[in-house]
Amino acid sequence: MTFYTFTETKLRQFTENVFLKMGCPLTDAQLAADVLLKSDLRGIDSHGVARLSGYVRLWEKQRINANPVIKIVHETATTATVDGDGGLGLVVAPFAMKVAIEKARIYGSGWVAVKNSNHFGIAGYHSLMAVEQEMIGISMTNASPLVAPTYANERLLGTNPMCYAFPAGKYPPVIVDMATAAAANGKLEIAQRANQPIPEGWVQDASGNTSTNPHQLKEGGSLLPLGSDKDHGSHKGYGLSATVDILSAVLSGANYGPWVPPFVAFLEPPTDPVGEGIGHFLGAMSIDGFRPAQDFKDHLDNWIERFKSAKTVDPDKKVIIPGEPEFAYEQERRINGIPLIDVVVHDLNQLAKKLEIEGL
Amino acid sequence: MTFYTFTETKLRQFTENVFLKMGCPLTDAQLAADVLLKSDLRGIDSHGVARLSGYVRLWEKQRINANPVIKIVHETATTATVDGDGGLGLVVAPFAMKVAIEKARIYGSGWVAVKNSNHFGIAGYHSLMAVEQEMIGISMTNASPLVAPTYANERLLGTNPMCYAFPAGKYPPVIVDMATAAAANGKLEIAQRANQPIPEGWVQDASGNTSTNPHQLKEGGSLLPLGSDKDHGSHKGYGLSATVDILSAVLSGANYGPWVPPFVAFLEPPTDPVGEGIGHFLGAMSIDGFRPAQDFKDHLDNWIERFKSAKTVDPDKKVIIPGEPEFAYEQERRINGIPLIDVVVHDLNQLAKKLEIEGL
Repeated sequence: MTFYTFTETKLRQFTENVFLKMGCPLTDAQLAADVLLKSDLRGIDSHGVARLSGYVRLWEKQRINANPVIKIVHETATTATVDGDGGLGLVVAPFAMKVAIEKARIYGSGWVAVKNSNHFGIAGYHSLMAVEQEMIGISMTNASPLVAPTYANERLLGTNPMCYAFPAGKYPPVIVDMATAAAANGKLEIAQRANQPIPEGWVQDASGNTSTNPHQLKEGGSLLPLGSDKDHGSHKGYGLSATVDILSAVLSGANYGPWVPPFVAFLEPPTDPVGEGIGHFLGAMSIDGFRPAQDFKDHLDNWIERFKSAKTVDPDKKVIIPGEPEFAYEQERRINGIPLIDVVVHDLNQLAKKLEIEGL
Repeated sequence: MTFYTFTETKLRQFTENVFLKMGCPLTDAQLAADVLLKSDLRGIDSHGVARLSGYVRLWEKQRINANPVIKIVHETATTATVDGDGGLGLVVAPFAMKVAIEKARIYGSGWVAVKNSNHFGIAGYHSLMAVEQEMIGISMTNASPLVAPTYANERLLGTNPMCYAFPAGKYPPVIVDMATAAAANGKLEIAQRANQPIPEGWVQDASGNTSTNPHQLKEGGSLLPLGSDKDHGSHKGYGLSATVDILSAVLSGANYGPWVPPFVAFLEPPTDPVGEGIGHFLGAMSIDGFRPAQDFKDHLDNWIERFKSAKTVDPDKKVIIPGEPEFAYEQERRINGIPLIDVVVHDLNQLAKKLEIEGL
């Protein structure tokens, strides 16, 4: 495995060019690139530019609309439903979060369910939009089915991430951004490439038995919910994933459960949809609506300091504050550039050739 | 182990009498009894009348105020902070949820952070208050520290439950109500009484090693977060627990992390509090604020039917809809009564003697 390192500017320009070639308006291309770059900067390599080819393939199949008319189709003072018009989730979700933030500015909180959207990148990007406004940001999305609920031998739920982000004072924001499966699909892909066994409790095979074979997911197996098995609380991971599915899709009018269209172009969407596209759920709460923001930040700083200084099992391993490693990556990669694995670089250069744009 | 069965009416009257003897006003005594009875009816025996003696002991130590002046100390159109004045969480949390529901009725959503409260019973009770108004109900609370975050060898977080509840049409509400630890403390207590080993991944011993000894928690050990270990996503369980702690306490001005006062009277609260009492966070969202409630319910019914009919690993084990088993218990126990284990009956009768009220 070889890595090539690119500056943020270089990757950003390349990514914008890809979206422009898809026919996205300039501001949309810039926004979508910003979401993907944020992921690469923060070390979440599975959700950054490595996904570009996938978005293009879906667009080629006319499953992504590069020129959507995104609009609010229903609203109250603090709630709204947004129709993404089949656009990139990378563009639709920030539109919806802006609506939530605007409502929160006036009424203290804002909540937006989104239908007819696509993959929205990292949840953390959207929550951070609220954090920048001294608000608490909440973001979640459903996703194509890969996870079997407790006792099931079918993929009925996506890895359905949920994210809560809180602004701190002296420290980086606390950002809990997590798939509700035991292991993210990205971790499985790493094991697949290395052909190495995975821990028990990540996947079950086609017969429903737990397996350490990373390839089982491609052979009819399923990912397992957070908790892995009933004894260890897999019904909780399933419950969280169900919560994300219901808030994102049953509430908005998107597809849910096994009806969520696949993120890969080689799999066709179900022919009996129960809604439109995939769904997200975004929220913002003004901290000043509860207590002065400075008091909140001071206490969150105190919380962070107490947890960072906790007694640990292994003296070399500190308790990690959620969002802290990603923040450190971002500082480092803004300066030193973003490393991409050779297969991704090759894929992106092939994409450049196809789209007739400058390669990396 | 022997069980004695009591009618709902009998247990309710007994419970009200206990709270009246503590000096609670009648409506508070009735409400607190309703919260505890709901737990026993729904089969969550660890959170019902079995806790009565514990509440009384805290009241005797003047750590619960039987006559609180509960009030809103800060608010916007859709957010508020409530000061529980040291009252029973069983009374304070429903007060706060009513505020959230009233805001949601007018503005589409309502969110209330609570400080200076105590143990609030089952989270599901409070979320269900919203469900009865065609709203989505959210409830969470922090709790006295028993859980070690990933890598830590200290108890820094409670089992911090979160609950999301959704009204369905033909079916009972979907209620995800879960501790964010791998196993609830109640499960551990059952194993302690039976002196039986527990699965690996529930607790670690005082040295931070995983243990199957159910007594380790009493010997300096800690509960583990949902996910159990880093490989299986314990950082996610830790992140969820942190989210509950921050929303419930850092946002409201309650104690957080290791400063949360213990639920048991024989342990003293920390002498350096960072806030007041324990904290809750309650929310309500009007479904009509997103789409017509009937459409939502129809689709949630469809969701439920699809999941209930899923292909399973073991043909004898169906996929369980969150909240379904508790609903079945409630139907059954309303008719056939509530079974209590002999040690609980003995304890309650001792309590009755002490308070000079009629026993069970």
